[in-house]
Amino acid sequence: MNKPIGIFDSGLGGLTVVKELKKQLPNEQLIYFGDTARIPYGTKSKELIQQFAMEDARFLMQFNIKLLIVACNTASSLAIDTLREHFSLPIVGVVRPGAHAATVQTKNNKIGIIGTPSTINSDAYADEIKLRMDTADVYSQACPLLVPLVEEGWLDGDITRLTLEEYLNTLIKRDVDTLILGCTHYPLLKKSIEKITQGRMNLIDSGLETAKTVKEILIKENLLNLDNQEFKDQYFVSDNPLKFQKIGSMFLGEELTNVKRIDFEKFLMENKKLLKNIQI
Amino acid sequence: MNKPIGIFDSGLGGLTVVKELKKQLPNEQLIYFGDTARIPYGTKSKELIQQFAMEDARFLMQFNIKLLIVACNTASSLAIDTLREHFSLPIVGVVRPGAHAATVQTKNNKIGIIGTPSTINSDAYADEIKLRMDTADVYSQACPLLVPLVEEGWLDGDITRLTLEEYLNTLIKRDVDTLILGCTHYPLLKKSIEKITQGRMNLIDSGLETAKTVKEILIKENLLNLDNQEFKDQYFVSDNPLKFQKIGSMFLGEELTNVKRIDFEKFLMENKKLLKNIQI
Repeated sequence: MNKPIGIFDSGLGGLTVVKELKKQLPNEQLIYFGDTARIPYGTKSKELIQQFAMEDARFLMQFNIKLLIVACNTASSLAIDTLREHFSLPIVGVVRPGAHAATVQTKNNKIGIIGTPSTINSDAYADEIKLRMDTADVYSQACPLLVPLVEEGWLDGDITRLTLEEYLNTLIKRDVDTLILGCTHYPLLKKSIEKITQGRMNLIDSGLETAKTVKEILIKENLLNLDNQEFKDQYFVSDNPLKFQKIGSMFLGEELTNVKRIDFEKFLMENKKLLKNIQI
Repeated sequence: MNKPIGIFDSGLGGLTVVKELKKQLPNEQLIYFGDTARIPYGTKSKELIQQFAMEDARFLMQFNIKLLIVACNTASSLAIDTLREHFSLPIVGVVRPGAHAATVQTKNNKIGIIGTPSTINSDAYADEIKLRMDTADVYSQACPLLVPLVEEGWLDGDITRLTLEEYLNTLIKRDVDTLILGCTHYPLLKKSIEKITQGRMNLIDSGLETAKTVKEILIKENLLNLDNQEFKDQYFVSDNPLKFQKIGSMFLGEELTNVKRIDFEKFLMENKKLLKNIQI
């Protein structure tokens, strides 16, 4: 089926999901929206994140997408039910695939989660884990400094090490054997995290797991694109396309082109009625 | 004159200005707006910051304010001219008072500025300093991690020390004797900065300087409130009023009450025409 896949994130973290999608589903066309005008989501309220997620999804619906990926852990944790209530296409968040993988990989049933304050406060990962494994011990840690550290490009070094030690200390003491990287920025800190945990924890990259889930759904729902036609992916942001292009290449592992800024506020004003009808 | 003073910031940093205003002008009523739904401004584009500033100002105009304070360094650096073009009331930013104080206090004409990436890239402080002192050597340093550190509450300790060392290293080597804290969050790091600079730099708190300028303007323009009547200040935010109230007390140095959340997107939609007429 030749329709594109829509994917949104608060910024460029979702590109770690895109990277995996391009590996596992090279025939699919992706339309990406990064809400860089309102980034970050992870420190904001549930109501606001639900509103933002609905607006981001509405933007992507213009492209007649066949499946929607919520690549932002915060939006997946807080807004996926709201999105599913309002849109009938398949919607995949990063939380459920990440939680599922953790329950499969843990040996001692002690699972840790690190994420933004909003993701952690939502208990979304913990709830999904408990649904699958009610005997699991779940330990959560909010890590508000990790996103700014990654965006500063400080992926290793003393400051990053000390910050990670501060955040991971309790999880290590509790003997957690499986750690969910509950934010799309965190896979860039994988090596530094492995040093601190001395390789003793399975690190779950939700982006990677999400790409697997998307592939399964496309096969099951008969939505795979079987043409060998080459599609050009499209990237939209609500601010700073050049910055997105530059830092984005670090996330994607290849050069990023075709990034366009859209006037998101204008889009919202022009679609006021449309958005009102689906008011949350 | 019994009209209130309007003041906005991207979040709660502007409360350091409020703290000084309340000391120096206890008879004045303040209406504060913190745009916590779109915080931070400091990593976003010039165009977007100008748009946000115009919208924030328009919100405060509803209260028939007699003077507008742009308490956000980023908005002061990038949007103050735009605001002055569109509104005829006195508008005070934090950049000019901070730059002025630095030129008065420096002995060796070596002035440092630390701020968010957008503030630093704008060169607003450097330009204002050069206007007053063309012989000054100005050294600027963007410090994207300091705001998240303050909001995490890590005002001292190894991580904060190492991060400050990383950012201040070059300024110390260049023998800077006066350092502008070009972000309203930074006064909370004053003690830690003083340790690293070993008390050898004058630290300029733009918020404090701004309050002085506001007082001068109110006197000069005959706008002082001479009544002894007690006014209740009002605080509005576009997200998370409880978080603002909690962390805000740390900035204000006293308990913060009377914080209301407004639906800012609804305000923008309802005032679409008004805002269109003053499109930047």
